[in-house]
Amino acid sequence: MSFAPAAFTHKHLLGIEHLSQSDITAILDLADSYADLNRQPLKHTDALAGLTQINMFFENSTRTQASFEIAGKRLGADVMNMAMQASSIKKGETLIDTAMTLNAMHPDLLVVRHPQSGAVDLLAQKVNCAVLNAGDGRHEHPTQALLDALTIRRAKGRLHRLSIAICGDIAHSRVARSNIMLLGKMENRIRLIGPPTLMPAGIAEFGVEVFDDMAEGLKDVDVVMMLRLQKERMDGGFIPSEREYYHRYGLDADKLAHAKPDAIVMHPGPMNRGVEIDGTLADDINRSVIQDQVEMGVAVRMAAMDLLARNLRARTPETV
Amino acid sequence: MSFAPAAFTHKHLLGIEHLSQSDITAILDLADSYADLNRQPLKHTDALAGLTQINMFFENSTRTQASFEIAGKRLGADVMNMAMQASSIKKGETLIDTAMTLNAMHPDLLVVRHPQSGAVDLLAQKVNCAVLNAGDGRHEHPTQALLDALTIRRAKGRLHRLSIAICGDIAHSRVARSNIMLLGKMENRIRLIGPPTLMPAGIAEFGVEVFDDMAEGLKDVDVVMMLRLQKERMDGGFIPSEREYYHRYGLDADKLAHAKPDAIVMHPGPMNRGVEIDGTLADDINRSVIQDQVEMGVAVRMAAMDLLARNLRARTPETV
Amino acid sequence: MSFAPAAFTHKHLLGIEHLSQSDITAILDLADSYADLNRQPLKHTDALAGLTQINMFFENSTRTQASFEIAGKRLGADVMNMAMQASSIKKGETLIDTAMTLNAMHPDLLVVRHPQSGAVDLLAQKVNCAVLNAGDGRHEHPTQALLDALTIRRAKGRLHRLSIAICGDIAHSRVARSNIMLLGKMENRIRLIGPPTLMPAGIAEFGVEVFDDMAEGLKDVDVVMMLRLQKERMDGGFIPSEREYYHRYGLDADKLAHAKPDAIVMHPGPMNRGVEIDGTLADDINRSVIQDQVEMGVAVRMAAMDLLARNLRARTPETV
Repeated sequence: MSFAPAAFTHKHLLGIEHLSQSDITAILDLADSYADLNRQPLKHTDALAGLTQINMFFENSTRTQASFEIAGKRLGADVMNMAMQASSIKKGETLIDTAMTLNAMHPDLLVVRHPQSGAVDLLAQKVNCAVLNAGDGRHEHPTQALLDALTIRRAKGRLHRLSIAICGDIAHSRVARSNIMLLGKMENRIRLIGPPTLMPAGIAEFGVEVFDDMAEGLKDVDVVMMLRLQKERMDGGFIPSEREYYHRYGLDADKLAHAKPDAIVMHPGPMNRGVEIDGTLADDINRSVIQDQVEMGVAVRMAAMDLLARNLRARTPETV
Repeated sequence: MSFAPAAFTHKHLLGIEHLSQSDITAILDLADSYADLNRQPLKHTDALAGLTQINMFFENSTRTQASFEIAGKRLGADVMNMAMQASSIKKGETLIDTAMTLNAMHPDLLVVRHPQSGAVDLLAQKVNCAVLNAGDGRHEHPTQALLDALTIRRAKGRLHRLSIAICGDIAHSRVARSNIMLLGKMENRIRLIGPPTLMPAGIAEFGVEVFDDMAEGLKDVDVVMMLRLQKERMDGGFIPSEREYYHRYGLDADKLAHAKPDAIVMHPGPMNRGVEIDGTLADDINRSVIQDQVEMGVAVRMAAMDLLARNLRARTPETV
Repeated sequence: MSFAPAAFTHKHLLGIEHLSQSDITAILDLADSYADLNRQPLKHTDALAGLTQINMFFENSTRTQASFEIAGKRLGADVMNMAMQASSIKKGETLIDTAMTLNAMHPDLLVVRHPQSGAVDLLAQKVNCAVLNAGDGRHEHPTQALLDALTIRRAKGRLHRLSIAICGDIAHSRVARSNIMLLGKMENRIRLIGPPTLMPAGIAEFGVEVFDDMAEGLKDVDVVMMLRLQKERMDGGFIPSEREYYHRYGLDADKLAHAKPDAIVMHPGPMNRGVEIDGTLADDINRSVIQDQVEMGVAVRMAAMDLLARNLRARTPETV
């Protein structure tokens, strides 16, 4: 199985920040093909055969790591997971030593999650292989934004001129940050809804509208994107009570009624049911595309790794 | 390498309860072929090539997980292990969310171990793929019963009209429960031996004979199946001292002398040597088939996954 | 891809102790070929296709386990990692039970790291497959010595009549022990440098020179091999302060000036920067071959597993 190459020339996938409209479209188009493949009885290709993929997760993430691992294995890569203990990352120095050690083993694709913003960019400067950012601190989570984009495009038939609400804990969310950039680049109207304490300073400069009332913010939107409450990142700051939070910002049928009748509901998972979203609504397959997001996650990661591997091979002629 | 298909039409392997005599024979016949393959220098097939197998173990089990992992890899599947932390399974809801997330990644085979009886059946109702129960609470452990059956059939030349003693902690054992059902379906005489406190209420209804004396219970049996003391499941109940337990119920040469001269000795592992069984007897290859059980475990799991995958493929035509 | 077979007839790789000069050369020659392969865009062969490799690490070691895992996957083996909890190794008996259980699953290659000296040899006597010692207590770490040898041979153009200093915590180091044997067998002059408290008793019998002063010991050497301070193995004994240790035995540019101008600097990793070695020197690619060591590690492990698998296959005819 082989798909036509696309106009994607990056060495790494570090963030949405560096991608153009056509980069995004190239990834999503290829991901569409992989989404079809993943629904076939046999779902294995040789696009990454002979290549080595290493997943380095300095933060636990069952679902993201699983998604990258399945993606790599379905593409025929030799995939290895490295469980990086918290103890080994106290010094920035150690991150680089670890990266250099792995680099010396000649991996082709390095998938990295790290609790510190910028750590993945730093690492990418030190290694020869293609680096994929699987989430760094509050900075970026580009494959999440890409899978959200693919989910929207498939549900709505387009990825531009939509009105999209991103709701909740914007301040601590790399998901929000990557999504705001991607959806902005694709020329959508973005509305951020959440308590002022969870809204980052200076966010209005990104060309978004900011609301602290769900009824007002959700008015006539096409897409409602809920975020997870990132309590683990609220060090010392304001932590709302879950009950109060749900009352004001949790998505339920009443609040959703302010959106367009065919608005879709998204959540990056894992969900806190009854905190950010009503459980029944989350499971309503007429409105919720939460499972589709997970499905598109594998497809988007296959596409991103395939494109990066093609560029890698183009740069590295065989030295026979 | 390819084996003739068998008359096995189930979607899942959740328990022995649902299997007929011919289902059991179909699995064991195919497993016999895989047992031969596993003794070859090259032991890899493509029976599951292009399929994705996920092992979800909510309880640690080095040996069962290893057995399923080796089985899947030898069949050419893309195999992924998910280490499910205890913390993520507090609510039944979360189990389903986790299952739905994995399901969206389009696995073909889901191997699940869970500490709660019935959890695997519940999960199977929610997903599209084939589910294999790798042990749920005190309920079932079907591949263990199947590997025990294959071990007996190979050692004794048949799997019917045998007199089989199952000894020890019956009450807490899913291994005993699955074995009682399987061996009963295959028309064997089953004797349960153990302290009354470790014997489940109403067990006589299963058509078994119950003993609390080893000498009496082992009389003229063909097979002696020892169980592990499941102290971790005896919450608050009676826990016998190991010394007293070994004295009365631990298998040694003296007690074994009451069985037939060619009786075989089994244990599902891991063994508590000197508690359930004498270490020397466990290692006596003239009597003990404990290593054979492990060997047949891989073969039985290969057969079960192969049969389920064939049925899956028959249900899912390629949508080109 | 296939390389010419070499004159290596061992069943296991348990230690350098058992290897001849020509054994060592056979492994290094084949490893050279694999080092070339690992620099190609596609780095996968089928040398171990159809074989099962199990990594049993009773001690954590991210880098060594990763190296063996990548090596096996690039050779096409079905590779499985077993995380062996400390709790399951309290009794020597349990090690053997675990080994026998794995053995019954018919692995072909068993890679074992264990905290007790001699544990891997013991295990090798019990199983049918090829066993590779990935480090046992203070005893041996043969693939480390082989990768060091390959690194030296590639940097210096030869592996004999070199003057080589091994510096630091000799007493607790299996790396030092395996290296002393290998470099001795290949007819090099070995100098050990370290505090007398970290020098093993009776070491002079190995035909080495012993120094407790770096300036004196490093004089005119071709190779400077630093060791890691194995604080975790200094149970109750003398532990030097890191600052004092660095002052007297840590390698920096001043101390290195006593070696030959083209002397190379080695460290088995992970490094304690500023304790055993100056960070800037460790990163100086004109002197330091630390990354090369990691790179050669994968190649040496590929070669060793390939050679052992060939011997395994020669002993095990297909039984059709």
